[in-house]
Amino acid sequence: MTIDLQTARTIVAEALAAGRAKGFKPLTVVVLDAGGHLVAAEREDGASNKRFEIASGKAQGALALGLGSRALMARAEQQPYFIAAATAAVGGSLIPVPGGVLVRNEGGTLLGAVGVSGETSDNDEAAAVAGIEAAGLQAQPD
Amino acid sequence: MTIDLQTARTIVAEALAAGRAKGFKPLTVVVLDAGGHLVAAEREDGASNKRFEIASGKAQGALALGLGSRALMARAEQQPYFIAAATAAVGGSLIPVPGGVLVRNEGGTLLGAVGVSGETSDNDEAAAVAGIEAAGLQAQPD
Amino acid sequence: MTIDLQTARTIVAEALAAGRAKGFKPLTVVVLDAGGHLVAAEREDGASNKRFEIASGKAQGALALGLGSRALMARAEQQPYFIAAATAAVGGSLIPVPGGVLVRNEGGTLLGAVGVSGETSDNDEAAAVAGIEAAGLQAQPD
Amino acid sequence: MTIDLQTARTIVAEALAAGRAKGFKPLTVVVLDAGGHLVAAEREDGASNKRFEIASGKAQGALALGLGSRALMARAEQQPYFIAAATAAVGGSLIPVPGGVLVRNEGGTLLGAVGVSGETSDNDEAAAVAGIEAAGLQAQPD
Repeated sequence: MTIDLQTARTIVAEALAAGRAKGFKPLTVVVLDAGGHLVAAEREDGASNKRFEIASGKAQGALALGLGSRALMARAEQQPYFIAAATAAVGGSLIPVPGGVLVRNEGGTLLGAVGVSGETSDNDEAAAVAGIEAAGLQAQPD
Repeated sequence: MTIDLQTARTIVAEALAAGRAKGFKPLTVVVLDAGGHLVAAEREDGASNKRFEIASGKAQGALALGLGSRALMARAEQQPYFIAAATAAVGGSLIPVPGGVLVRNEGGTLLGAVGVSGETSDNDEAAAVAGIEAAGLQAQPD
Repeated sequence: MTIDLQTARTIVAEALAAGRAKGFKPLTVVVLDAGGHLVAAEREDGASNKRFEIASGKAQGALALGLGSRALMARAEQQPYFIAAATAAVGGSLIPVPGGVLVRNEGGTLLGAVGVSGETSDNDEAAAVAGIEAAGLQAQPD
Repeated sequence: MTIDLQTARTIVAEALAAGRAKGFKPLTVVVLDAGGHLVAAEREDGASNKRFEIASGKAQGALALGLGSRALMARAEQQPYFIAAATAAVGGSLIPVPGGVLVRNEGGTLLGAVGVSGETSDNDEAAAVAGIEAAGLQAQPD
């Protein structure tokens, strides 16, 4: 079970809508399936060059270790050398700040992850959660 | 000047619609701005894991050398060592088969590139061109 | 839906048993889930150092492009520059010779892939297929 | 002298059994020979995507520097830049937290290493040690 394209489109659209409603800076939203492979992504006009890579790295990191990227930040605060080493071990895609949120269905099955970048990390996470919940799914930010 | 998100959405939607109309296998479509940075991407249900990386590599390669990826294939046929070396030099994202198409406006200004993967390379290119032209822009496949 | 550990153990055991029954050289067998992540692997005594990486690359390549690695070899024969470029684009794990076999259930749903290395490529593939079929699943070698 | 496949199977099975007996989260266990090459690995159902890479990195790091990964953590606390640089120098596989345990025979000869990931680092290490000792070998966690 994973996130299909129609669901991913809803998540992207609703995460961006949440950002617009709250006056956030331009956002980039990435939706990955449970295996860590891209389903859909959009980068808003005015976002800087590598926001896709940052948003993707938040979602990749969450899936790699099975925790929302907020939990990875807590780990980075305690053991920065672990996160640095894990980043190298997984080939670079692991960004340990909020905004990488696991997606589960009602029964708790992992479906994928959403990564958002462009605003403060807390606001990135809020947009990701808004998109996931608008699609009727469960968001796990940490 | 570059491709804005609204235009990229049109290109993605129309490229996928062209694929559905022609009975193509599941496609992945990536739209990059003139700097080679993602604007929008979608991977259809049933597409294999790394189709985003392949589609993106076609578009990246086109922008890297300023030619549609069909022209890069011609170069690969003549000088495979050049394409292999260029691939390494640019960090891996350069796929020299059709399906990476440059996007220009009416005046010929380069706006970005579209990469498509999932079907035969010729059909991938056809879907990319359909998307670009549906957005009122000029497609340069070679 | 993916390959669970118990099924992966059966595939590994039966692929190795097939190799012993046929007098093959020491084999390495890797089972990946549908997302391309390791479920189980074993390298027989006497196998050379990097057989895990080769076997894994066969299975990774099959999942990356949605074809058994025998089909990737055919593509490599026709367009070596495509396979070289795709290998770079996916980060190195793509070995285009027989022995990387997709695994599907009765209904055709993709569950993962098996990679085998150590003997001739044809024999590697035979061992992978034997393991998959012994687990009651469908093998797609090309 | 190194770890043969039969011994590696015992280590994997007993490390996982120890985890089940103690109610640990899903574990991934990797056994490497003295040269740092995979002999056997299993990832339990429900473990996150990159647990193999993390477990393998703990064992690789232990063999790289000849110390259990608990000792590498102590070094990381004192000189994080050394561990970061060593991680880069060895190509990424060096995870400096407990759970990477050297394996020696009765006479103290180095046979290989075991890496475990999925629970707290202390519990990962406990599972690795349980597996090694169940195989009648000596565990060196630091």
